[in-house]
Amino acid sequence: MADTQLELEQDLVRRVVRSFDGCRDPRLKQIMVALVRHLHSLIREVRPTEAEWRAGIDFLTRCGEGTDHRRREFLLLSDVLGASTQTVAVNNEVCGDATEATEFGRSSLATHPEIDLGGDLADGPPGEPCWMEGSVTDTEGTPLPGAVLEVRQAGDDEHRAQRCIADEDGNFRCWAVTPTPYPIRTDGPVGQLLTAVGRSPMRAAHLRLLVRQPGFRQLVTHIFVEGDGLLDADSVFGVKRSLVRAFQRQPAGTPAPDGRYLTGRTWSRVRFDVVLLRTSTLANL
Amino acid sequence: MADTQLELEQDLVRRVVRSFDGCRDPRLKQIMVALVRHLHSLIREVRPTEAEWRAGIDFLTRCGEGTDHRRREFLLLSDVLGASTQTVAVNNEVCGDATEATEFGRSSLATHPEIDLGGDLADGPPGEPCWMEGSVTDTEGTPLPGAVLEVRQAGDDEHRAQRCIADEDGNFRCWAVTPTPYPIRTDGPVGQLLTAVGRSPMRAAHLRLLVRQPGFRQLVTHIFVEGDGLLDADSVFGVKRSLVRAFQRQPAGTPAPDGRYLTGRTWSRVRFDVVLLRTSTLANL
Repeated sequence: MADTQLELEQDLVRRVVRSFDGCRDPRLKQIMVALVRHLHSLIREVRPTEAEWRAGIDFLTRCGEGTDHRRREFLLLSDVLGASTQTVAVNNEVCGDATEATEFGRSSLATHPEIDLGGDLADGPPGEPCWMEGSVTDTEGTPLPGAVLEVRQAGDDEHRAQRCIADEDGNFRCWAVTPTPYPIRTDGPVGQLLTAVGRSPMRAAHLRLLVRQPGFRQLVTHIFVEGDGLLDADSVFGVKRSLVRAFQRQPAGTPAPDGRYLTGRTWSRVRFDVVLLRTSTLANL
Repeated sequence: MADTQLELEQDLVRRVVRSFDGCRDPRLKQIMVALVRHLHSLIREVRPTEAEWRAGIDFLTRCGEGTDHRRREFLLLSDVLGASTQTVAVNNEVCGDATEATEFGRSSLATHPEIDLGGDLADGPPGEPCWMEGSVTDTEGTPLPGAVLEVRQAGDDEHRAQRCIADEDGNFRCWAVTPTPYPIRTDGPVGQLLTAVGRSPMRAAHLRLLVRQPGFRQLVTHIFVEGDGLLDADSVFGVKRSLVRAFQRQPAGTPAPDGRYLTGRTWSRVRFDVVLLRTSTLANL
């Protein structure tokens, strides 16, 4: 590249960066300047033709056209580019034995009707029952009675969830559904992108878990299934090794831990111990 | 940052990059991999909170909601971030004396009714008349008779344009309108962004010029106005020093070059010589 061309490109970046000099919000300024630098680095590196650049603009425009309350295409785009998972990563620094966090999911985490420990939704969703149990402790192993857990069925647009509360020993148990792989939505531009680059839309099977306890960092996490062939090919890069658990299949007729009558169906059981990080620990990092 | 945290973030980038291994279109693969690397660099550098990341997703979603045929918000976003101008820069390498190109503008460059040399639109747009003349040559100074020029009035949603053709000596002349500064559209999310960062939406005054001649690189360029206070503060970073010209104001009553009767109004005149680059020169760069 000729020197003048190099200077011209660099000078443009400097001028765009300077245009944010008057921004009174220092954080917004920092974000915009970084965005500009990386965006221009991308353009200068791949040197898109004008037709390619237009195709990019058109892609974003089509993502916007497809956005409604049920399908949030830009969030999906962030997911399949690993950006959602990276954002979670930079917000949940790895801290010793604390349970790792995962991406925050498509809907805001609204509250759901509380159900009894060991109970399940009155009109349980279809699928194989899964008995889930575990403990909630701090990083020293001290039980955290009263911790609130919400378990969500993956792949369910309705985001059906059940809630349970750790008992006086910090233990919880509930019925969920054995998770199975499912595709992210593919009827929009992001689905077309995945097809164009030869990627699968499938998500590794998982249960989603939200755990809250005053004085501790709120945890949003997943529980993945040992042996799932998608563990290394999750379409949103959400799998973390530390969150993979054995879901042990029980033959039909095996008595349920809570005496529930399972009408001759198979069921599974999984143990997931949750370790929460104290907010005070976090402040000292 | 702890080593494990660093590894976790880097490993995620590697996994996302690898997910494009199966892409059969090498150019698409190159673009997506570069996009992923720069996007993740941005996230790892600014370390957005989850709320900030959601605000970004929401911003894009609102841009999509506002997009229609008249207001293409994502193109506007590209413009105010200097991305459109940078894309033009990497596609129009500086070549000696050839006239510099500028951003490609909001509408596709459709053809417009041809008008006589020296003529103007029958129902000319409002504004001060501007006599525009110049030559079209190659980089050796050889005139290019028959070169087709389209002159557009800036800031006009209708993109009114007039067309003229260089005569046997490679000269052209036509009436346009003296350009004045105007704001880009600010009634959408991009306008809100400019307000939030304290930036002006004003564009430097300009005429837009498209020049075509077989065997030469098509030129899309601007002519800017000497003395315009916005030359260093154009909201889309389109100004290039080499494209600034003196628009000489003529007192009311000054005879027009083509004898046109100007009803006692002031008018301006500008000279803009166009130098086109041979496609064969381009191929040898």
